[in-house]
Amino acid sequence: MNKRWSKEVRALLQKKKRKETQQFIVEGYKNLEELFRSDLEIEALFHTEKLLPLLDQYKFNSKVIDDTTTPTLLKQNGHLQTNDTGLAIVKMPSFSIPSVDDLDSFSIALDDVRDPGNLGTILRIADWYGIKNIFLSKQCTDAFAPKVIASSMGAFTRIKFHTVDLVEQLSEYKEKGIQIIGADMNGENIHDFKPKGKSIMVMGSESHGISDEIHKILSTKITIPKYGGAESLNVAIATAIICDNIKRV
Amino acid sequence: MNKRWSKEVRALLQKKKRKETQQFIVEGYKNLEELFRSDLEIEALFHTEKLLPLLDQYKFNSKVIDDTTTPTLLKQNGHLQTNDTGLAIVKMPSFSIPSVDDLDSFSIALDDVRDPGNLGTILRIADWYGIKNIFLSKQCTDAFAPKVIASSMGAFTRIKFHTVDLVEQLSEYKEKGIQIIGADMNGENIHDFKPKGKSIMVMGSESHGISDEIHKILSTKITIPKYGGAESLNVAIATAIICDNIKRV
Repeated sequence: MNKRWSKEVRALLQKKKRKETQQFIVEGYKNLEELFRSDLEIEALFHTEKLLPLLDQYKFNSKVIDDTTTPTLLKQNGHLQTNDTGLAIVKMPSFSIPSVDDLDSFSIALDDVRDPGNLGTILRIADWYGIKNIFLSKQCTDAFAPKVIASSMGAFTRIKFHTVDLVEQLSEYKEKGIQIIGADMNGENIHDFKPKGKSIMVMGSESHGISDEIHKILSTKITIPKYGGAESLNVAIATAIICDNIKRV
Repeated sequence: MNKRWSKEVRALLQKKKRKETQQFIVEGYKNLEELFRSDLEIEALFHTEKLLPLLDQYKFNSKVIDDTTTPTLLKQNGHLQTNDTGLAIVKMPSFSIPSVDDLDSFSIALDDVRDPGNLGTILRIADWYGIKNIFLSKQCTDAFAPKVIASSMGAFTRIKFHTVDLVEQLSEYKEKGIQIIGADMNGENIHDFKPKGKSIMVMGSESHGISDEIHKILSTKITIPKYGGAESLNVAIATAIICDNIKRV
């Protein structure tokens, strides 16, 4: 990885540069493997010899392939604390907002989820439960941030994330018959809940829950019953429990 | 916080020193509030004026109370990246291993969970689901590590954690009629599972799952059904989904 590439990779740690260039970075063995399996366009790949088994296994196109990279360079320029395999610069996919017909029976919307680790974990959970579309409010952390991509464990290759004006988008879906469900402290017990037709579940922010504006749009509210002393659950944990309950119906 | 105390607090960031002194640290508003509500013994409390509302609200004993602390000192000596409220040195509680009669209907065992954030989150989940006892293998991360305590969100005041020879302890419980359940990729669907009598659920390590030795002890195995493309779920996420399924029975 020469100096010009180092500079380019480091720039992609910033949201502003990712937006300008419409590129993001993918790091580490597991996420690179998922990348090679996907249809995403690879602009450049920097790797050590530890990635060779993957390069033999998958057919993929990359405009640049550079095998002069070291773990030290990967650590200096990427975001992972250790990375002895590789890093790719990838073209951002663009997803069109699904019509009501294109929506699956169940989707997720995140209202102001700020922590990249939480967002990445939520993508991984959604991927486990076969959820295709996730809607993000404009105040959510950037879904293409390196930490989100890394903690999604490949989910970024399968899930369509849409950053939207959440109030507007959910209002429009609701008018067209989609049930908008809010996860809240005072809702129906999720153990007894069955969604009616196609639905979107809204998860609120780590600190303030669902915003007042979104509250006004909700068709209904659900709650995870508590049996002990904890005051709350982490937003990713709550998402997982709700997805499991919805999918078992 | 004078130099002597700074040194003492910093020492408690290390497992070895915590073991020697049988003390650990609790940081930040929420966890200090939970500490004041509990019966844990406080050796020393260092706080800024932002903690005053809590000090007025709760009756608690601390051998030393030092109000000369600043956010800078808290950051320099504690483990949190920002802390403008306070830090306490607390005496480690000692919990005796529960007899079969003392065990609740459902407990958790962790086989080699290494990540402090995961362990803290699991304590918080267990606390939400009213689980009283958690058994930790000796290879698990230390439950009194500052990151575990911080991410447990007060659960450390309500949950009894027992670091044990897990093979030995679970074998003994099994002989006495406790069902030992393993979370695994090839088990009974958790959506159809009902525990028989008192049970302990074993969660495996982040990288290798349940160890071979523990596998031999299991009474039965359960699995979280997958609907999409993700290869696995994080251990804390899986724990939450299983607890929710067990508790809804």
